[in-house]
This record gives sequence, structure tokens and C-alpha cells, in this order.
Amino acid sequence: MNQVRIGVVGAGWMAKAHSTAFRNVPMLFGNEPAVPVLETIADIDPARAKAAAETLGFNRWTEDWRQLVADPAVDVVDIVTPNDAHAEIAIAAAKAGKHIYCEKPLALTAGEALRMTEAAEAAGVTTLVGFNYLKNPAQALAKEMIEAGELGDITQFRGTFDQDFMTDPTVPFSWRHDRSVAGSGALGDMASHTISLALELVGEMAEVCGLLATFVKQRSVATGGSGHTAKASADAAMRAVENDDLTQFLCRFNSGALGTIASSRIGTGRKLWVGYEIQGTKGALYFTQERMNELQFYRQGEPARERGYKTILTGPEHRWYAGFHPIAGIGLGYNDQKIIEARDLLVAVATGQKATPDFRFGYRVDRIVDAVLKSVDEHRWVTVDEIG
Amino acid sequence: MNQVRIGVVGAGWMAKAHSTAFRNVPMLFGNEPAVPVLETIADIDPARAKAAAETLGFNRWTEDWRQLVADPAVDVVDIVTPNDAHAEIAIAAAKAGKHIYCEKPLALTAGEALRMTEAAEAAGVTTLVGFNYLKNPAQALAKEMIEAGELGDITQFRGTFDQDFMTDPTVPFSWRHDRSVAGSGALGDMASHTISLALELVGEMAEVCGLLATFVKQRSVATGGSGHTAKASADAAMRAVENDDLTQFLCRFNSGALGTIASSRIGTGRKLWVGYEIQGTKGALYFTQERMNELQFYRQGEPARERGYKTILTGPEHRWYAGFHPIAGIGLGYNDQKIIEARDLLVAVATGQKATPDFRFGYRVDRIVDAVLKSVDEHRWVTVDEIG
Amino acid sequence: MNQVRIGVVGAGWMAKAHSTAFRNVPMLFGNEPAVPVLETIADIDPARAKAAAETLGFNRWTEDWRQLVADPAVDVVDIVTPNDAHAEIAIAAAKAGKHIYCEKPLALTAGEALRMTEAAEAAGVTTLVGFNYLKNPAQALAKEMIEAGELGDITQFRGTFDQDFMTDPTVPFSWRHDRSVAGSGALGDMASHTISLALELVGEMAEVCGLLATFVKQRSVATGGSGHTAKASADAAMRAVENDDLTQFLCRFNSGALGTIASSRIGTGRKLWVGYEIQGTKGALYFTQERMNELQFYRQGEPARERGYKTILTGPEHRWYAGFHPIAGIGLGYNDQKIIEARDLLVAVATGQKATPDFRFGYRVDRIVDAVLKSVDEHRWVTVDEIG
Amino acid sequence: MNQVRIGVVGAGWMAKAHSTAFRNVPMLFGNEPAVPVLETIADIDPARAKAAAETLGFNRWTEDWRQLVADPAVDVVDIVTPNDAHAEIAIAAAKAGKHIYCEKPLALTAGEALRMTEAAEAAGVTTLVGFNYLKNPAQALAKEMIEAGELGDITQFRGTFDQDFMTDPTVPFSWRHDRSVAGSGALGDMASHTISLALELVGEMAEVCGLLATFVKQRSVATGGSGHTAKASADAAMRAVENDDLTQFLCRFNSGALGTIASSRIGTGRKLWVGYEIQGTKGALYFTQERMNELQFYRQGEPARERGYKTILTGPEHRWYAGFHPIAGIGLGYNDQKIIEARDLLVAVATGQKATPDFRFGYRVDRIVDAVLKSVDEHRWVTVDEIG
Repeated sequence: MNQVRIGVVGAGWMAKAHSTAFRNVPMLFGNEPAVPVLETIADIDPARAKAAAETLGFNRWTEDWRQLVADPAVDVVDIVTPNDAHAEIAIAAAKAGKHIYCEKPLALTAGEALRMTEAAEAAGVTTLVGFNYLKNPAQALAKEMIEAGELGDITQFRGTFDQDFMTDPTVPFSWRHDRSVAGSGALGDMASHTISLALELVGEMAEVCGLLATFVKQRSVATGGSGHTAKASADAAMRAVENDDLTQFLCRFNSGALGTIASSRIGTGRKLWVGYEIQGTKGALYFTQERMNELQFYRQGEPARERGYKTILTGPEHRWYAGFHPIAGIGLGYNDQKIIEARDLLVAVATGQKATPDFRFGYRVDRIVDAVLKSVDEHRWVTVDEIG
Repeated sequence: MNQVRIGVVGAGWMAKAHSTAFRNVPMLFGNEPAVPVLETIADIDPARAKAAAETLGFNRWTEDWRQLVADPAVDVVDIVTPNDAHAEIAIAAAKAGKHIYCEKPLALTAGEALRMTEAAEAAGVTTLVGFNYLKNPAQALAKEMIEAGELGDITQFRGTFDQDFMTDPTVPFSWRHDRSVAGSGALGDMASHTISLALELVGEMAEVCGLLATFVKQRSVATGGSGHTAKASADAAMRAVENDDLTQFLCRFNSGALGTIASSRIGTGRKLWVGYEIQGTKGALYFTQERMNELQFYRQGEPARERGYKTILTGPEHRWYAGFHPIAGIGLGYNDQKIIEARDLLVAVATGQKATPDFRFGYRVDRIVDAVLKSVDEHRWVTVDEIG
Repeated sequence: MNQVRIGVVGAGWMAKAHSTAFRNVPMLFGNEPAVPVLETIADIDPARAKAAAETLGFNRWTEDWRQLVADPAVDVVDIVTPNDAHAEIAIAAAKAGKHIYCEKPLALTAGEALRMTEAAEAAGVTTLVGFNYLKNPAQALAKEMIEAGELGDITQFRGTFDQDFMTDPTVPFSWRHDRSVAGSGALGDMASHTISLALELVGEMAEVCGLLATFVKQRSVATGGSGHTAKASADAAMRAVENDDLTQFLCRFNSGALGTIASSRIGTGRKLWVGYEIQGTKGALYFTQERMNELQFYRQGEPARERGYKTILTGPEHRWYAGFHPIAGIGLGYNDQKIIEARDLLVAVATGQKATPDFRFGYRVDRIVDAVLKSVDEHRWVTVDEIG
Repeated sequence: MNQVRIGVVGAGWMAKAHSTAFRNVPMLFGNEPAVPVLETIADIDPARAKAAAETLGFNRWTEDWRQLVADPAVDVVDIVTPNDAHAEIAIAAAKAGKHIYCEKPLALTAGEALRMTEAAEAAGVTTLVGFNYLKNPAQALAKEMIEAGELGDITQFRGTFDQDFMTDPTVPFSWRHDRSVAGSGALGDMASHTISLALELVGEMAEVCGLLATFVKQRSVATGGSGHTAKASADAAMRAVENDDLTQFLCRFNSGALGTIASSRIGTGRKLWVGYEIQGTKGALYFTQERMNELQFYRQGEPARERGYKTILTGPEHRWYAGFHPIAGIGLGYNDQKIIEARDLLVAVATGQKATPDFRFGYRVDRIVDAVLKSVDEHRWVTVDEIG
């Protein structure tokens, strides 16, 4: 039985998600072409590393990610640290000849992302960036339909990513509000997912023009809990929010299609409103992650008397789904996307093929993010080529 | 019984819609404060004028709109001609002291619209522009909620107007594709409605930046039928489409809210996709005209365990509705919006009050349209103040 | 210009709906094959008759329906009285050789309905019963699809009619709660519409078995207002509700399909939930009147990878719609159904053809109602043939 | 670390689902109060038992379920065999003092189910029946709302379970069509889930009256594959289908509420249409498993101007959800329900408490199934008390 040995860097919420995903892969998809082994996990906080190793079932743990990267028993370095640490770890891993699985956004800047990409390409290692919303059978179907020409020429893309967990102004300041750690806010953290869908389904963008806004200008400093469960006491100090609550931008795709992307972390009323409407000369698609098992499709060529948007529930006819269930409409969940992602990485590593979305794709996303930021700063249209 | 005597200029599809609306008003709302009289109808084609007068029940007809405007038996001049004739007729009507009901867009340019507005204001006459989607009980509720602060500070507006009747490239060239008659395409003809909703619900815009695109570059010249039922023979000549199939633009509202508006007349899959999502710090609204009797509302302040978007069916608690039905959920149709519009005009004229949306509002819409056009031409952000 | 002269019996809410509908017909559909003339209106309350005549535009009025029935200037007797008066008036009208338009339910019992039907058939007059939900382009499409075999053999029908305006126990007692005037409650007043859809779309029923329930056992006697706007003072007397708030019944269709129908006037959360799901061996349909411009259709024969329920918005390809609008998706309202109904009656009378649904259809509906009542009384399955 | 050792009987599709669920529990919920150990798996086919043990990670396997039941290293006997084997294994397990986790339906008859229940109760062991649709945070919320009186008195329940994977008449004969193995079809296999929701949310039923129908009367005998992926060659022999494709029945609840339940395995257009509408005097709920992360709720007491059905996305405020995600709207999938079920069993066993739904609940469901069968056979209403 072929094994792929995983070393995870970072022991927070995403470490749990990745580790759980890996362990589910053979149970759902079987032992071929390889089974994952949770070899080791690193965190600068040794207590956290140890606890994660025990709960999640790693063979070993360390407080030194460099040790993990150097470890000959590790085949894949899986990076789930805060965003600002991705580049250093990934470049080291590439130099050590490790395959790399990295959470999104790939880096804080396109420049950083490019260096990571070039390092990995030079080393010839397999890479995968965690744009997990692409790992939905519904998106595989969307892509297949578009590639088959069933939408004709795409005319417009309207994408979104709204969540409203920060609408409440008493939600405390966290690393997500800290520009030096997180980069931009709604743009880099959330809209990057929507950009990944746009690039995957509609193709490259030529130029962008955008706006950012921060409505909750200060938040209290947390005095307990962490991440989504952090709480602040009533007399907690306030800290200025450093990045955007909300972004909206226009884009022109290379193909001539027009696009808008809007994303808000104070997106009142929406919980996981990652989605799009894509219109073409022969058909259209509508999707929202809140109903992740449904793809809506309209075919222009049907008889006028019965044309209408059709709600397709994903099923075994669509990529990946048959690993989970033998008949359509048995809903997948968010975690199942991570299982698919882990499975794709394992297959790529075991068979020596490229995974998607790879680092170069992650770099393309970061270029768009940087172009939007520049367009905001300079209040003008920015071509993607202006970004290195 | 107080009477308001109507003179309609133009005898096409919209003349039928307006006339039918007027005749329904007393049947639904009673005879107070006034009943409409269909006094006379004008069209340059005398046969069309005569036929319309007979079918629609006008007392008289004429081929000369100037005669109608001068007619002492006419209280309201109702303009349903192609867009390029609005200004001349309206200014003449204002000078003759007539109240004016004019279809949208008010004019081909903001400058023209301003002259019309100033003429009407100088004459002290009542004006109303046919942005009929505002005449929906659902929009009255939306406005009431926003004014009462139930959405808090608005953070983003996302508006649309898609129709797909021109996705079919064999639909012939019509006046809607002729820039000198129609002005812009998806922008002026369709997105102007979405702009009317944005201005009414979110307020004035500070600046805009947009894109236009024409995907169907030529259409055949119609050889039979007219309007939506025109047909071209197989060997019909082709003519270049002169305006936009599709527009998308960003806007920044004076309040600080961000907005996107996207509209397409080749909006595959959508039939009357006039709508919006409006998010605020305390609540959110979602609406689409395809489900015109529903307003979706989310209230942030509800207990987290039961928060969710609520589908409100319009009913007698909402403005205008009780004229139609005594209980909620008995659907209104598109034509009912026109009845409400005609009713609002009648009440305003009979009671000597302002109607809404008036010419100044129509001018405000046309300014946004012109600002978007300028932003497209110059590929940059344009402040609304740059437009006269 | 051919005329059809209408005499309306009853001057309440439905009189307004019918009269308005008639007046809209020529405005929307033109003057062929006939135009309606609102000739006279009768009500036992002369003030009400006079007021209605003035507001609605009748030439004359009377307090004696027998005079109206005898009037040689009346071609059609239009019956919009409370249900218990339908039979006497209709039979008199048939004997007088008048065409008859009667609101539903046709009668209080199947026996009464049969006598009306036989009287009309003997007289050879045109009849139409106001099951207005059948007059929706969406239902015309549904029927066309079923007749064309696009659903294959129908396996099950699930129908509903819920409204919640009586969930509030302070809504006063009205004629609708009085068995001698209204007959049964949710069953006869509301479910009869659902039965009309079932018979029209699935065909005749063989047997039924049902339940009734009354949850609000007493209501206060109204001390002001009337109909849906009646109010009771705090110290109003109470009166026992005499018929059902709620019914549910099973049926077996002659074809072998199974069916359930459920209807409630305390149908909390639903405003006009008249609808169905119809499943067949080749396709399925779903409809609710709350979204009356949409028919949902599923076609089993499509490729599995893209099968899904499709939302068809009604348009000019569907029966009747083109009288209203030239393109799809411009919503019709409830009143537009009544216009279509009035139009169908006019055409039938003017051309000497049968209208649908006619009295015999109304009798078929009443037979099902009576069979359900008998099944409730005797707590057993009742074949429809047991009802005379 | 406390351990609960699992012995699974049966090595098919459900064995995989249960085993995977157990292994996910500690990863998601942590190691307290106990961790599951996959101790042994039994199947009469030794190759299947061995393969399952290896893929799913059991310590041991056996071809003799009696050995497994007698094994002192097994704490929980988990029964995922075909339905006809449940009773014998469960009774043996109870006698051996093992806790029991059994797939639904509990037994082929209510009598059998009662013997299982009495055996388990006599032995004082913990039992759980796999009605996994109850293990959805949405159902926990529904139950909480009903128990808190937020729906008032329930007036009607309308439940469904449609799937259309057998609409295709070329799907081969399987054990599901064999009465001696599966019992009834749509009724026992599918509607039993809907009955579980009805009993849990509305309470006990007093009497039922139903219908069954089989539309696909013969199916070909499979010549390859198994379960949902079985295929028949073109010349395969045909075998008569022995149970129902479709059932519909009425019920009267002890509380006075009325109910209908309809279920079809040829439910064209529906993939996993397990759901309900529940109306009460103060509120209403709507749910379908195809959108398993949404519960729709209507509250009668809200101001009339903003009343409407609300779509609540499940989140950490709802039972079980926080084990998966820290914020609302991150969708769970079908498999996550099984994880919750396994978790509930583990907690009950580890803490010595009752699990729900237990065998007595499973017996209550089977009583309703038997009452419906009797009502079909005798074509009459049957009280639940008539069933032993």
C-alpha cells in the first residue's frame, strides 16, 4: 500500500480540517493510489502542537517547522499557518523537495506568491492551494459545461462572497483585521475565493477597478477565546481595524466578458454567500455556496415554451461525487470539499501529476487582488499586467 | 365628480398600457378625488391615432401633438413617444401649463432632462416619470423600512436589470438599437430603472465608473411586424447595432455605501430581473421583479438562533395594495404597477400636490446615465457633479 | 361591433372583480369577437345596487334579480351572490335562455349542482364557473404538457390550498363560517379550487377518504365592516363556527394515480397556497399560486448530468399571455386571471361555443366535495359514484 | 481515555457509513467522554468481511455474527444487515448485554420490533435506531421551537419522502423489491423516516388510512454490480416487484392535528425529498432534506407588515453544529448526520444514559407502518391500537 506522509505546519482550526480530510480519504475513496499518513505536526506553541497531534492522530509533533520541512519522513508539507508565514515555509519546503499543500490566499502579495510559485516549479514539486470551493462537484459540472461550449461566449460574470459574522460590531479585533498578518480583508480573505471561481470558469482578467470600505472602524481587543469564538470584556481596549470590511470591483476579462465582484464580511443576511451568475450567448449558470449541492443552469436553445432555469442537484454523474454516495441529491457538506481537495492532492503526489489549483493559479489570484488594491489606491483602472 | 382630462401623445404599446391603467383607477380606487377622462390621443400616423382612440376609448384623436398640447380640454399631457421626442413635447406642455406624465428615460441626455425639469418647475405643473417599478407595494415597504432605520447604515447595493429577449441574434434591429432615437441601450433603457431604485432607496451617488459592451454587433432589418413582434426575412439587410447590450458600473453613494449595477438585454436566463440586494448594518433587503409580490428582509437584531431572510408577501398593510385586494398574497401584476402610477398622478393633479418620481428625479437618473457614459468614454471614475 | 350584454346578480367584492374584468377585456384583447356591455346589476340592497352601478359603470340597476333574469337586454346572467343563492338564480336564468357565468362553488350540494347543470344543458346555454385559477397561462401549459404525454402516466398528485387570514382567532364570524350559507369551509370554499386543478390535470376520481377539523370553535360576531374587513368590538357576542377550518383527504384517480389534497383557512404561513405537485413516469410539475407566473417542470428523459426542476416563467408562447405582454416574464396578477375568464366567456357566447369550466365541471367538483363530506361523516372510503 | 468498542454486523454500504462516522467523532468532537474503537466486523461472506476490515480499519473480522455478539471485547453491536436479519441479531445482542445500534426500519413487523424492544429494555442496554434525518441541527431547532410552544397547537402535518432513482424502469430488481427481505417498499423503507419526523415533532398518531401502488410491476434481474449500481443485461429475466413504489396515507394525531404522508421511490423530480410542512396556531415550519441546512419558520405573532417565512441556516446556536463549524451557514452533509448519530450513541453508552431514537421509538414507527398496511389491506381506517 503506497503511502503519502503528511507534515502539517500550524495547529489551529484549519489543521483539524486538513487532518480530518486526509483521514477520510481512504474510507471514502479506498486505498488506491495511496493512503495518507499523518506523520507530524508543527506549531510554535508546543502545547498546541502536542494536543493536536494527540487529538488528530499524528505520529509525532514538533515546535519547529524547519525540522518538519527537513524531515525525510515527510512527503507533503501542508501549510495552515496565518497568511504571512506561507511564503517562507513554502519556499523552504520547495527547496527541500517536498510537495506542498498551502491554504489560501497563497501569499500577502503577488510578488511573494510569484517567488513561491517559481521555487516550487524549479523544484518540480506538486503544489495545491486550498481554494476549496472549486472542489465541489457543482463546479466541476460548471466547468465542464463551459468548456463544452454550452454557455456559448460568456458575456457577464457577477460574483459575490458575503458573510455576516462581523456585522456585529462587538465581535473583537482578530488577526483577520491586522493588515500585517492577514493582508487585505474582505478582498484577500474572501473575494479571493470568488476570483478563483472567475479565473477557473471565465478565464484571465485584463483589468480591474475597485473600491474598498471599512464600516466598523474600531473593534475591542479580545480578552478570551480565540478565532471565531473570541470574546472581549466590556472594558476591553479598542483597536483600529486595518483592512476592508467590504470590496466591490469591476473587471474586464481577456475574452471580452464584463465582471463585477462584491464581497463583504459585514454582508448582513448572508452566511456563506460565495457564488456567481455567469451569462453567455447560449446559456447561463447561477450558484451560491449556501446551497452548495445545487447548480442552476439555463439553456437558451430549449424550446421557448419550456425554457427556464433548472436546479441540478449534484450526483454520481458529476466529478468526485460517487466517492460519497451512489445516487444524486444526498447532500455533501463543506468538509466534504476538503476531503476532495486532500484526495486530489494525494492522487497527484502518488501519480506524479500536477494538482489543481496549483501555486501558479494562486499567484494569478493574488495578482488580481494586488491589481484591485492598486486601483483603489490610485482611483483608476489598473491592468493586471501592471502587477509583476 | 371631479375630472382629470388626459391627452396621450403616441399611440403604441405604452399608450395602451397608460390608457388601460387610467380606466382601471376608478374601478379599483373609486371616484375620489377625481376620475380620469381619456380626452384625446395624438400620433403622427393618423390611422394609428384613430384606431387607438377607438379601441382604447378616447373621445377624440389628432395627428398633431401641438394641437393636443394647446387643447384647453386637456389637463394632463401624457408622453409615450420614442425617447428622442420627450423633451420638445414636455417643454411645450409645461409652457402651456399642462401637467405632464412622461415615460422613462426622461430624456436622451441629462442636459435635455434638466431643461424639461426647469420648464416644468417654472410653470408650477405636476410631473411624473414612468419609473413604474417604484410603484410596487414591495418598494413602498422597502423605503419605509430604510427610512425607519431598520437597515441601519447601508453598506452595499447590488442592482441588476437583465432581460434575455435579445440574446437571440436573429431578433431584428429596432429603434432600441438606434442611438439617435433610444440613446444608450441596456444602460439608458433598462439600468435607468435600477438607478431609480438605487436613488430612491439608498440616495444620491457621488461618482461612478463603468463599462459597456455590445456582443451582437449587427442585426437584420425587420421586414414585418413591429416592436417585440418584429420579424426579418432570411435575406434581410443587416444593420450595425449602435448601443450597448450590456453595462456594468460601480458607484459610490454620498452616504459612503458602495454599489454595483449590472444590466443586460442579452441577459440569458432572466426575463425581468430588475432587482437588488441592499445590505446595512442592521438589516438587509433582497428583491427581484420576477417575483414582484415578494420582498425579502433580514433583521440583524433577531435572536441568532432564528435569524434568516424572510419572504414577505405584499398585502393590505403595504401602500396601494388595499386598492386591489383585502388580504395579503393575492398577487399583483405588472399592469397593476401602471394603475398605481396613474392613480398617483391623478391624486397629485386633483389635490394640487407634487407627484413622485417627478421630472427632477428623472433628471437625477439621467445624470447618472451620462456620468456612466463619460466614465466609459474616458475609462476613469467620473463624479456626478461633472455632469451639468 | 358585436355586443354581449351582462347582468350581474350580487353587488359585493366579486361584482367589482367581474365588472372590472369585463371592462378590461377589449382594452387588452380588442373588440373581436364581441365587446361586453355592463347592462344591469341587481342586489337586494338597493343602495348597494345603485352605488355599484355608478362606480362600476352599469347602465342600470335593480333590487330584483328576477327582473334582471327576465330582461331581454341581458345576454349573460353573472351570479356573484353568496353560494346558497346560486342554484335558484341559475336555474331561472337557464329557463330564460340566458348564458350563465357563476362563481364557485357551483352549489351547496352536488344534487343542486346537477339540477343547475341539467337545466343549463336542456336550455342549450353557455355556462362558465369561476374556477379562476385554471385561467392562468401556467395551467394551460401544464395541461398541454400532460395531454402531450410529457409526464407519462401520472403516479401521484399532491394538492393544497392554504390561507392564513383566519389563523387569528379574533377575526369575526362571517357568512363563510355559516354552514347554511357557505356549505363546508376549507373544503368547499378553498379545496374546491384544488379539486378543479386535480380534475382538469389528472382526471376523474374514483374514491375519496377524508378528515375535517375546526380549531377555532367560536368567533365573535362582527360589529362593523364587512367581508375581509369586518371587525368585532371587545364585548361582541360569540358564535359557534359551523364548518371546517381544515380538511385533508386521500383520493384514488380512475387512472390509478394516488392523490392527497389538504386545505386550511388557518394555514399559518401561507397566503394563497393553491398548488400541486404532479409526478408521472416521464416528468413532474410543481406549482404554487403564490408564484403564479412560474411553472416548475422536470423531464425524466434529459441527460442525468443535467436533470433538474426547471422554473418556467409564463410568456407569449403560453395560452392567453400574449393579450397582456409581448415578452415572457412580465408578471400577471390575480385580477388578470379574472380578465382571462371573462374573455373566455365572451368568446364562447359570441361564437356559440362551450366555455370551460362549465356547469358540468362544477358539478363534478361538487360531487367530490360531497363524497369527502360523506367519507368524513361515515369514517370510511366513499366512491364518487355513491354521490348522485 | 475511555473507549467504546464497536462490532459491526454486515459489511455493505451502511457499514462504511457507520464506520466512517465513528472514526470522525473524536476528530470533530474530541476524545470525551469516550473514543470509539472499530473492534470487529462480521459478514457471512468472509471476503467481504476481510476487505471491509482492511479498508475501514477494524482490528478483526469474522464470518459469524454470533461470535461477534459473544465477543467480550465488543461493547456495541452495530447492525447494518438487510432488514430481515435485524431482530434475531438484536435480541441475541441484548441477551449478551451489548448496547445496540441498529439501522432502520427496526424490524419487518411491529411484533418483531416489540420483541426487540422488550429484550433490550429487559437487558437494560442502550439502543439507537438509525433514523439519521433526526440528527440534523435543523430538526433539533424544530423540536425546540415546538416544545417551547412557538408553533402553538399544531393543526396539520404534511410529510413526504420522494426519491426518483427507481423511476427508470430499467433499474434492476434488488432486495428492496423483495417483500421477504425488505418488507414494504416506499412505506417501510422511506416513509418510515417521515413517520419518525412526525412522531418526534407532532407526537403519537391515533389512526391512519392509506393507499399503496406499484407502477413498475416487473424489473429485470441484475446481472452485475450490486445495490444502487446494479445493472441488468438486455436479455435478463424479469421478476415481479413485490412491494409498493408509492404510498399515501392520512393520519389523525392524538393531539387532534391532521396529517398526510406521501412517499414514492418513483418520485420523479425529487432526489431526497424528505420533508414536511407543520402548521400551528402560532407558527409554522417547512423543511426539505434537499436543502438540509435550512429550516423555514413563520411566526404568526410578528407585525403583519413584515410577517413571512424565514429561511434559517443552521449554525452554532443549534444542537450539534458547533462540533463542525464555529459560524453559521457552513453546510453540513448527509454523512455529518451519521457522525452526529454515532456521537450520540457513544455519549449515551459512555455515560450510561438513554440514546434517542431508541428501540421503543423504532417500534412506534413500525406500528404506524403496520397500521397503514392493514388499512390498505382492509380499505378502512385503522387505529394504531389495533396493532400489537
